Amino acid sequence: MDRLSEIGKISIESPDKIVMLVLDGLGGLPHPDTGETELETARTPNMDNLAHRSVCGLLEPISPGFTPGSGPGHLALFGYDPFEFTIGRGILEALGIDYPMEAGDIAARGNFCTADDKGIIVDRRAGRISTEKAAELCDILTAIPLEGAQALITPVRGHRFLLVLRGSNLGPHLSDSDPGRSGLKPERVRATDEASRHAATLVNTWLAKAAELLRDEHPANMALLRGFSQHPDLPSMQDVYKLRSAAIATYPMYRGLAKLVGMDVIPVAIDSTIEEQIEVLRRNFNDYSFFFIHFKPTDAAGEDGDFEAKVRAIESVDAALPKLLDINPEVIMITGDHSTPAILKSHSWHPVPFLLYSKWCRTDETSKFSERGCARGALGRMSTLDIMPLGMANALKLAKYGA
Amino acid sequence: MDRLSEIGKISIESPDKIVMLVLDGLGGLPHPDTGETELETARTPNMDNLAHRSVCGLLEPISPGFTPGSGPGHLALFGYDPFEFTIGRGILEALGIDYPMEAGDIAARGNFCTADDKGIIVDRRAGRISTEKAAELCDILTAIPLEGAQALITPVRGHRFLLVLRGSNLGPHLSDSDPGRSGLKPERVRATDEASRHAATLVNTWLAKAAELLRDEHPANMALLRGFSQHPDLPSMQDVYKLRSAAIATYPMYRGLAKLVGMDVIPVAIDSTIEEQIEVLRRNFNDYSFFFIHFKPTDAAGEDGDFEAKVRAIESVDAALPKLLDINPEVIMITGDHSTPAILKSHSWHPVPFLLYSKWCRTDETSKFSERGCARGALGRMSTLDIMPLGMANALKLAKYGA
Repeated sequence: MDRLSEIGKISIESPDKIVMLVLDGLGGLPHPDTGETELETARTPNMDNLAHRSVCGLLEPISPGFTPGSGPGHLALFGYDPFEFTIGRGILEALGIDYPMEAGDIAARGNFCTADDKGIIVDRRAGRISTEKAAELCDILTAIPLEGAQALITPVRGHRFLLVLRGSNLGPHLSDSDPGRSGLKPERVRATDEASRHAATLVNTWLAKAAELLRDEHPANMALLRGFSQHPDLPSMQDVYKLRSAAIATYPMYRGLAKLVGMDVIPVAIDSTIEEQIEVLRRNFNDYSFFFIHFKPTDAAGEDGDFEAKVRAIESVDAALPKLLDINPEVIMITGDHSTPAILKSHSWHPVPFLLYSKWCRTDETSKFSERGCARGALGRMSTLDIMPLGMANALKLAKYGA
Repeated sequence: MDRLSEIGKISIESPDKIVMLVLDGLGGLPHPDTGETELETARTPNMDNLAHRSVCGLLEPISPGFTPGSGPGHLALFGYDPFEFTIGRGILEALGIDYPMEAGDIAARGNFCTADDKGIIVDRRAGRISTEKAAELCDILTAIPLEGAQALITPVRGHRFLLVLRGSNLGPHLSDSDPGRSGLKPERVRATDEASRHAATLVNTWLAKAAELLRDEHPANMALLRGFSQHPDLPSMQDVYKLRSAAIATYPMYRGLAKLVGMDVIPVAIDSTIEEQIEVLRRNFNDYSFFFIHFKPTDAAGEDGDFEAKVRAIESVDAALPKLLDINPEVIMITGDHSTPAILKSHSWHPVPFLLYSKWCRTDETSKFSERGCARGALGRMSTLDIMPLGMANALKLAKYGA
């Protein structure tokens, strides 16, 4: 049974609106002094009031114990099983800088590194050189010619760069040259299928020339590549759900993930507030039936270990919520792609609070939007994969399954 | 997607410790006089206090409504899907008596039975003859010669024995000779694949000779065989989780199940108390990163229908719990492999109370370790298969999945 095609068979097109508001890294862990999580600490009268009129639960983004990266976390939100659909590291890097990939391109994540005189890697990040320095080095590498293909190099941030291999008949199934730790030599890139042999040859040629060109640089005297990948061929939200969908996201990576599933991206500035994102939604309300709003500051604060900043970020969303309610979409879902507890300073495996509001949601007894409140919700602990069908159903966009 | 290999890719080796304490048959049903289950009746201040600092839920060992045998129940605890990995009846019998199986051996469960003069089975258990009598009969059968193979016979308990067929090129895919009920003749053993034809011939020869040799015995004048199986080839806990794992179990079958997934077995006497098992854990604490403690008396009392004995068994574990807490492992999980309600005198399908304690567990509001308390836990009702990844995550032994 192909789950998405089964959903496709019963999806109904209609003008009713579904809004998915994603507070990145929403879930948290208790502050040691208070025993309350970020979301429990935040004053959220509007979300609490909405939770009272909603059905709530805790979402398992991938599977219990699995900590999702941003790619799998968002695929799951959109209903695409991250065990079935994978997004390569190289592609994610390209999405993150809005790189204009073309059909057949292969993307890889590059690191500038430091090697000793025997070619052994002593620092995989070349002392974390500046983005400016990396840009200079990328200029040098741009000169490398390849027979019948182009190697396009773009600096990303610090020691990171993006390599895009463009040419015909290039297979993406290549092993990493980056051995993943220092004390080793870089590995020769191997094709893991016949169709990727030519690409492997080109990449190894490129790596050898890059090492030559960088030889006298310091500390970044070598380049490593990993995560070779092509644009994944995902069915679109239009195909699966018959939704005209739009993404309102401030960061390129999330806009890129939305594009992968065929969403239109409505441009907003990287420093837009959530009020401004909601205003953009209001202005485009009639043109779409699904809106994905991505809110980044909750995750950024969590990653920084800044409990208070995460609390304030949540409160800023709460303050803006009435503006969203005024627009009156038929379905509102609020959740995150994963937890990012400030105390862990990283993504985590903990399930994520979820509320779904609609006229037809069958409310439960949860009247506080929080980890503990949602744990008592009528949805219990459920898979993130299921929220799209649930949102569709609550917008009366899913027909009866079977006669 | 192969779930175990995906877990393998993100597992991290570290010295942090995970302890899985399995109270066999833990879950119960209410006593008709009090309306409280065995676990609810037991005074368990230490487990209740730990539950207060833990995250709780109810575990579904296989799938709702499925009553697990010990094999599937334990495979699920260790994270191996019992629908994917099966342990034959013969192998389980061999594990139960610590039989030294060799590669290629085929094991079968044997019954001595009573047949009438037409060869029709009138009692599949031969009036439940004594273990001593069965041992005499096994001595007789040991004399049966087979061309190019050995048939090794070992008494188990009462009318039960183990047959191990040892030789080269023996396939294990054989039907049972035991028809499963009286009033029928034993069936001819059939190979269900080409590779098992030779084994089928040997077994049928053996069965015919056994019937001849037992003809004048009474009441055990025939032998039945079922559950032909070979040692299953399971990936080890080391391979999947990068855990150095140890089993502290008093009964051979549970030690055998632990060995199947590559655990070291630390010897303990069959009459060891739970305090003694915990003391063994303490002495070996630095040598392993995962400990499986198996506690049998809860299941034994449940099978006997002895509600009070099961209550006392649970209380004995509660009394020993502070010794385990003193050792201070990073993660403690307490649960059972299935329910064994005293009122049913057997394994049952009811989900099993579960608690997971760690510094990072995100506690819920459960402060009583019981069926009803765990039903309100933040984990809700979850698959037993997921507790290993969850325990790994809580020991910070699982890296992020996907970029």
